[in-house]
Amino acid sequence: MSTLIKGGTVLSPAGGVPADVLVEGEQIAAVTAPGVFGTADIVFDATGKYVLPGGIDAHTHMEMPFGGTFSSDTFETGTTAAAWGGTTTIIDFAVQAKGTSLQSTLDKWHEKADGNCVIDYGFHMIVSDVNDSTLKEMRTCIDAGVSSFKMFMAYPGVFYSTDGEILRAMHQARETGGTIMMHAENGIAIDELVAQAIAEGRTDPVEHGYTRPSALEGEATSRAITLARVTGSPLYIVHLSAAEALSAVAEAKDAGQNVFAETCPQYLYLSIEDLAKPGFEGAKYVASPPLREKKHQGDLWRGLRTNDLSVVSTDHCPFCFKDQKELGRGDFSKIPNGIPGVEHRMDLLHQGVVAGEISLGRWVETCSATPARMFGLYPRKGVIAPGSDADIVIYDPAAKQTLSAETHHMAVDYSAYEGFELSGKVDTVLSRGKAVVSPSGFGAKPGDGKFLPRDLCQYLG
Amino acid sequence: MSTLIKGGTVLSPAGGVPADVLVEGEQIAAVTAPGVFGTADIVFDATGKYVLPGGIDAHTHMEMPFGGTFSSDTFETGTTAAAWGGTTTIIDFAVQAKGTSLQSTLDKWHEKADGNCVIDYGFHMIVSDVNDSTLKEMRTCIDAGVSSFKMFMAYPGVFYSTDGEILRAMHQARETGGTIMMHAENGIAIDELVAQAIAEGRTDPVEHGYTRPSALEGEATSRAITLARVTGSPLYIVHLSAAEALSAVAEAKDAGQNVFAETCPQYLYLSIEDLAKPGFEGAKYVASPPLREKKHQGDLWRGLRTNDLSVVSTDHCPFCFKDQKELGRGDFSKIPNGIPGVEHRMDLLHQGVVAGEISLGRWVETCSATPARMFGLYPRKGVIAPGSDADIVIYDPAAKQTLSAETHHMAVDYSAYEGFELSGKVDTVLSRGKAVVSPSGFGAKPGDGKFLPRDLCQYLG
Amino acid sequence: MSTLIKGGTVLSPAGGVPADVLVEGEQIAAVTAPGVFGTADIVFDATGKYVLPGGIDAHTHMEMPFGGTFSSDTFETGTTAAAWGGTTTIIDFAVQAKGTSLQSTLDKWHEKADGNCVIDYGFHMIVSDVNDSTLKEMRTCIDAGVSSFKMFMAYPGVFYSTDGEILRAMHQARETGGTIMMHAENGIAIDELVAQAIAEGRTDPVEHGYTRPSALEGEATSRAITLARVTGSPLYIVHLSAAEALSAVAEAKDAGQNVFAETCPQYLYLSIEDLAKPGFEGAKYVASPPLREKKHQGDLWRGLRTNDLSVVSTDHCPFCFKDQKELGRGDFSKIPNGIPGVEHRMDLLHQGVVAGEISLGRWVETCSATPARMFGLYPRKGVIAPGSDADIVIYDPAAKQTLSAETHHMAVDYSAYEGFELSGKVDTVLSRGKAVVSPSGFGAKPGDGKFLPRDLCQYLG
Amino acid sequence: MSTLIKGGTVLSPAGGVPADVLVEGEQIAAVTAPGVFGTADIVFDATGKYVLPGGIDAHTHMEMPFGGTFSSDTFETGTTAAAWGGTTTIIDFAVQAKGTSLQSTLDKWHEKADGNCVIDYGFHMIVSDVNDSTLKEMRTCIDAGVSSFKMFMAYPGVFYSTDGEILRAMHQARETGGTIMMHAENGIAIDELVAQAIAEGRTDPVEHGYTRPSALEGEATSRAITLARVTGSPLYIVHLSAAEALSAVAEAKDAGQNVFAETCPQYLYLSIEDLAKPGFEGAKYVASPPLREKKHQGDLWRGLRTNDLSVVSTDHCPFCFKDQKELGRGDFSKIPNGIPGVEHRMDLLHQGVVAGEISLGRWVETCSATPARMFGLYPRKGVIAPGSDADIVIYDPAAKQTLSAETHHMAVDYSAYEGFELSGKVDTVLSRGKAVVSPSGFGAKPGDGKFLPRDLCQYLG
Repeated sequence: MSTLIKGGTVLSPAGGVPADVLVEGEQIAAVTAPGVFGTADIVFDATGKYVLPGGIDAHTHMEMPFGGTFSSDTFETGTTAAAWGGTTTIIDFAVQAKGTSLQSTLDKWHEKADGNCVIDYGFHMIVSDVNDSTLKEMRTCIDAGVSSFKMFMAYPGVFYSTDGEILRAMHQARETGGTIMMHAENGIAIDELVAQAIAEGRTDPVEHGYTRPSALEGEATSRAITLARVTGSPLYIVHLSAAEALSAVAEAKDAGQNVFAETCPQYLYLSIEDLAKPGFEGAKYVASPPLREKKHQGDLWRGLRTNDLSVVSTDHCPFCFKDQKELGRGDFSKIPNGIPGVEHRMDLLHQGVVAGEISLGRWVETCSATPARMFGLYPRKGVIAPGSDADIVIYDPAAKQTLSAETHHMAVDYSAYEGFELSGKVDTVLSRGKAVVSPSGFGAKPGDGKFLPRDLCQYLG
Repeated sequence: MSTLIKGGTVLSPAGGVPADVLVEGEQIAAVTAPGVFGTADIVFDATGKYVLPGGIDAHTHMEMPFGGTFSSDTFETGTTAAAWGGTTTIIDFAVQAKGTSLQSTLDKWHEKADGNCVIDYGFHMIVSDVNDSTLKEMRTCIDAGVSSFKMFMAYPGVFYSTDGEILRAMHQARETGGTIMMHAENGIAIDELVAQAIAEGRTDPVEHGYTRPSALEGEATSRAITLARVTGSPLYIVHLSAAEALSAVAEAKDAGQNVFAETCPQYLYLSIEDLAKPGFEGAKYVASPPLREKKHQGDLWRGLRTNDLSVVSTDHCPFCFKDQKELGRGDFSKIPNGIPGVEHRMDLLHQGVVAGEISLGRWVETCSATPARMFGLYPRKGVIAPGSDADIVIYDPAAKQTLSAETHHMAVDYSAYEGFELSGKVDTVLSRGKAVVSPSGFGAKPGDGKFLPRDLCQYLG
Repeated sequence: MSTLIKGGTVLSPAGGVPADVLVEGEQIAAVTAPGVFGTADIVFDATGKYVLPGGIDAHTHMEMPFGGTFSSDTFETGTTAAAWGGTTTIIDFAVQAKGTSLQSTLDKWHEKADGNCVIDYGFHMIVSDVNDSTLKEMRTCIDAGVSSFKMFMAYPGVFYSTDGEILRAMHQARETGGTIMMHAENGIAIDELVAQAIAEGRTDPVEHGYTRPSALEGEATSRAITLARVTGSPLYIVHLSAAEALSAVAEAKDAGQNVFAETCPQYLYLSIEDLAKPGFEGAKYVASPPLREKKHQGDLWRGLRTNDLSVVSTDHCPFCFKDQKELGRGDFSKIPNGIPGVEHRMDLLHQGVVAGEISLGRWVETCSATPARMFGLYPRKGVIAPGSDADIVIYDPAAKQTLSAETHHMAVDYSAYEGFELSGKVDTVLSRGKAVVSPSGFGAKPGDGKFLPRDLCQYLG
Repeated sequence: MSTLIKGGTVLSPAGGVPADVLVEGEQIAAVTAPGVFGTADIVFDATGKYVLPGGIDAHTHMEMPFGGTFSSDTFETGTTAAAWGGTTTIIDFAVQAKGTSLQSTLDKWHEKADGNCVIDYGFHMIVSDVNDSTLKEMRTCIDAGVSSFKMFMAYPGVFYSTDGEILRAMHQARETGGTIMMHAENGIAIDELVAQAIAEGRTDPVEHGYTRPSALEGEATSRAITLARVTGSPLYIVHLSAAEALSAVAEAKDAGQNVFAETCPQYLYLSIEDLAKPGFEGAKYVASPPLREKKHQGDLWRGLRTNDLSVVSTDHCPFCFKDQKELGRGDFSKIPNGIPGVEHRMDLLHQGVVAGEISLGRWVETCSATPARMFGLYPRKGVIAPGSDADIVIYDPAAKQTLSAETHHMAVDYSAYEGFELSGKVDTVLSRGKAVVSPSGFGAKPGDGKFLPRDLCQYLG
């Protein structure tokens, strides 16, 4: 079966060109000058619209266990919301429980996702235990298409790894070609600040921000970079939120080190002022790293322009306000950490295009092309090119929409962006050639999305 | 007439994918999965070869007047040599003589080039006089497709502009959207060092290097960046050769300023040791900035990887050893400045791929895609995409060649790379669909190449 | 004749100790534990007061010719005002007129000062012409006790030197051991901004500030540092006012280069808001570099603490508001440049001690000890030690005073600090053992002050 | 009883002046011009010699327990050796054993030292346990004259403190005014590298260096600086050995943070090449941080000139080669860490004066004046001034000596500087007015040295 998308402007990191896209089955067969192919089994008219590679959200947490509860989106609801927002691939995190193997962890996460996703998905592995056995399993994971390993300098007693463990894992990453992803906050120091706050009766959600100063994200980022330099390992900093951390990344990149970083929409649009909203409202905005002072936002947009920030992911980790966020009433440190966002990344970043913060090319690059190359999915994903999977979004830049929990598709009872009025909206989404979202409605079902074994990072210099 | 290039690996900044390319007339009609189109009027089999957008050399000097002589390549010989080396577009410099208008300068250069080029070409404008009249003409030039203006902080009394003149031109650049290109060496200070050397009887070619220390390129680069920041003008540093200058550019880019830089193959492969060759041999290597100590080479390669250096151009400016370079026997300051290179840029940078210094994607990006975007030629040039000009190179990475003045096509009696043994060689070159170079020989004639009116820089953030 | 200062706290860069100071004739004979000497011919009771080495103001302009007028203080009135404020040495600038020799310049300035000063004085030489002859005279000047040479990157057509001339002078400085002092603003670029302002009818005093942006002081400072590095010359940046310049100095100092800088009280206490005062009032505050935005003040205080700023001088250059400053009504570029201040430096910096910006030790160090060592006067001046000249200030930290043109001793009709209320005031001032200022009045006469031949800078590492 | 030191050159950080020094009892009574006092009970003729404040070694470890053994110098032998070398004050470390109180630790160390020292001494406190009780005791210690607290980012399981513990202690330091001293190496990461080395059979002494890369000292230094910034605590980095660490300190100092650092003679004169000496010889040079590659030496000397390194201490921690160092044969990680040096600091740094690395003033400043001010002993110690303790060294710059274990006074069977030929030697040493060392021999006895309660750091900006 063939599909033709005609009359649109096809986007790539270099900008847009008028072109038609022919899809045969699940792949793109040709990109042509307008009109080269007259028709096909199915034809989408993209006149006046952008045609771009489907978004890739490289940082999501569906059904993630956290402090006795689970993030509220299942793989089904989460991938459905993603698709509505123009994201056709997620890379979620398999979470090793201490004392278990990476393989069993992976098995468990396959079980969660298998048959439930409406779009394609991959996994990163969160390594909670570093020992001889798990280090060996890093190679097994890579062979199984899981080539990136997340570690935490935060959350002592939970996911935290010591610098020695990080060093060991990095040695193994250098040997195997895997990528170390790092949550870079000095959790040991932060825990002390949290203890002081609690001891002094400072328990409101905003204290979550005060006790995690940006300097301690900068410090941990610098430290991770040093450990990576000592070992020769590639390093990917997740959810970078602070100017100090950006500055450390920029310096390492200038020096030619294989260091990369992502930021998230919440750090571009929200701030500690949201965390300080009266009552317990701020709990909606509790995530780690915390929302920062507004002045950091300009730095992050600049980082997206300079490529010191290469990727925009969501760190989507939804917890309902009711019953979940409320676990932390009276003690901010008990509020489940996470902000929902998988559905709105493409729209929020398109808003950055509208506002002149980034170019159209950078939108596609940070949200699709670079994550694909960063995590070994390119050119299968992340590009409109012959042979690539036909994961294609037709995006209407002129459409208007207002974000709201009432209309979003994520399984969570609030929106961090409630009332945001945006220009631009997804019109049609193809996943491997099939119209998942289109003006005629939602066209996919659980199980349509398949697991994506991934290659190694394609950016290593 | 249709042409099909089949079986090759099509390259872009993101890497390579197996695809076929269909050309209709002068443009690319389609890029398809292998085999989508079975045949065409002409078919090139690119199996085992790279298919890449033709090289763009954004810095050449054909028939350039210099100290009473002219650079030895005409537009015909120079573009012919370029084509043999896989370059399908050059941007040459129209040189304003003091006291003349920019328009008359442009007219003169059109006259020189018109009907003589075998590949397409554009012009930058060298502004020697900054005054009310020439500032107004900057806009005229832009309207005429000449959107970039080169100024010199070097060569007092010849091309040199004062900081005040640079400031005025930059103000005009900000107003009009033009790009200021800068030869960034502190010529005033250098002239003093040269005078000291001559006065002390130090007259050998190597003194050309000693009297132009890298610190003075770093200084001028920093100064140009400051002037650009004060005015809000974009800035493009030509032929960056020194680590100090690179460092200034990297810092400005990190800060989000619209600053860009190119380097040249001679700074990547040659050094002051060549300039110090015995006898008058070093004269072959006299160019400004001068060849540097070897330690700078690693920094420049790193700059290419980090994108602090965005473009590789040649600064092709050939003077024959006999009769031309020899003008400077006994006084290095009289040696015509310039090194021939337009023919070997693609090969020399491919050698960087072979050596692991840069990726395949970066090769295409620095030599074709970025110059196209930087100088307003994209997507007409610089990409294999439907609608683009069919400027296509089929490159055989496995072929071997040895560079030599005996075999090169440039009209100059020596090669700066004599005896270099390289892996990779151009197989076929299409210019707007026509096979200029192919296994069956050279297929273009003077006048096949047309003037390219250019848009503004497409990188401004 | 002996003088004993007893009961005070003797200050040095390391802080204060209780000690008595015995003066015999013009020199200090002993510093002793309290009471070692019971009495002397004259006894000053310094109980509750500081005893510190007399202030050294290394940057004054008495009777300086500027644009057809002269700065309003003569050597007599200027040194009298200095003495009232606790300054016992000034280093003024001999100004070479173009086409004249350094020696004749020096002769002329000796003539101006000889017999007219109430305190000791030295000279720096402003080099307006750089040529073989003046370069040779640098050595003569050094032999004559004038070991520092000021050059200007500002004021094209007046004092301006090209980078080539600076380079030549720096070479000579390296050879002779002299110090190059630099007015570091990019005057060429500034003149262009000034011309634009005038052309656009922006003529108010505040435009003086707008047309001399801090970035252009930073640029010139960096350039001077590079030229000094290339030549191996020591460099002293005068009247540093901008954070960008401070940052360049700090970086050079970290790298171990012999680079030093002074700032002035006006940059610590006044700002562009003064320059923007309504009417023509702002003219009172016109000096170059201009007063900056307030945010620079904190950086400068920090620089004083970190020793990136080593010296506080005044750049005292008074022009009366009436008849002199008024020359620039309707054209800010015609306003004579300069702010009066020689009388209040010690008081204003003591106010920094009161405010906690600097320590007592730093007060003495930046205002007396360091200028003495920087300009080859140590240990004759700048320290309370046996053998040193008995230039001693007894300072009452508890006294209060209000600055005003009505009460100051400078020959100028306004005060830039009108109404400032300060803690601390000079009680007694000895110049070579003689009480110039004391509770019983002013005790010196013109001619008491002698010329000080100076040695080389004592800080070269 | 009075003592007169006449005819010498009295040194201070500002340089030298000819002056006589009169001592009455234990203190200096007067510093006078030569000849003011004709005679005294005892007269030392210092003609042709330097007269300087006695050296202060702020980092020694006498009788320190380490891995089941003790450093080989007792307080008696160690202070005797110090005195021979012109050091009149040491500040040793009281070492808290885990589970004990700071008070009992202090009591224990008083017991060790009391009655055994020949020169004055103070204590820092090594805090091994951070808890509510010890934090409270920090104030008690300060009241008892122990105002500085050393922590370790190295030596996990022994002295190591977590970042959280450091943060707590720094909070307390900010509250109490105490100074945190930091051994800044990332011990957690280093232990992993050590484990890898041992596992791979790399057991020679040089591995001690390879497993403690300079990058990990740089990292820990940066981290300590960040923690200090977050808390507002002053920070003193002990035994800085690496260019990366120096760079972090310089940056913090430029920013005005209260960060200080010391280096040691071994890092200025010895290198990893000593550690790599054949056989087990390298064990003599095992200390932490390890001796670095030679290129770091130039950076450290530069740091001493720029004051980014403020103090030179020895980290004197002697272990005999026989029986002690030998504990690590076959396993470098078992070699007791430490190098003897308390006797030779003044001589080795004077050699830096001879070599032109530092000035005479900086010699006195880094070895005596600054440690006195840094650790709250000024002006009692560290200066030749009336009222100060008469701790005075008469130093003969023309004398020659060769260092050797055969002649040194330290209780250790080797010299790290065996065979070093030096210019300059101590002639006479007074401790509180008493001649400890003089041409007539050693004149002090155990118990002559007294405990020095110290004030707070006097450098806080």
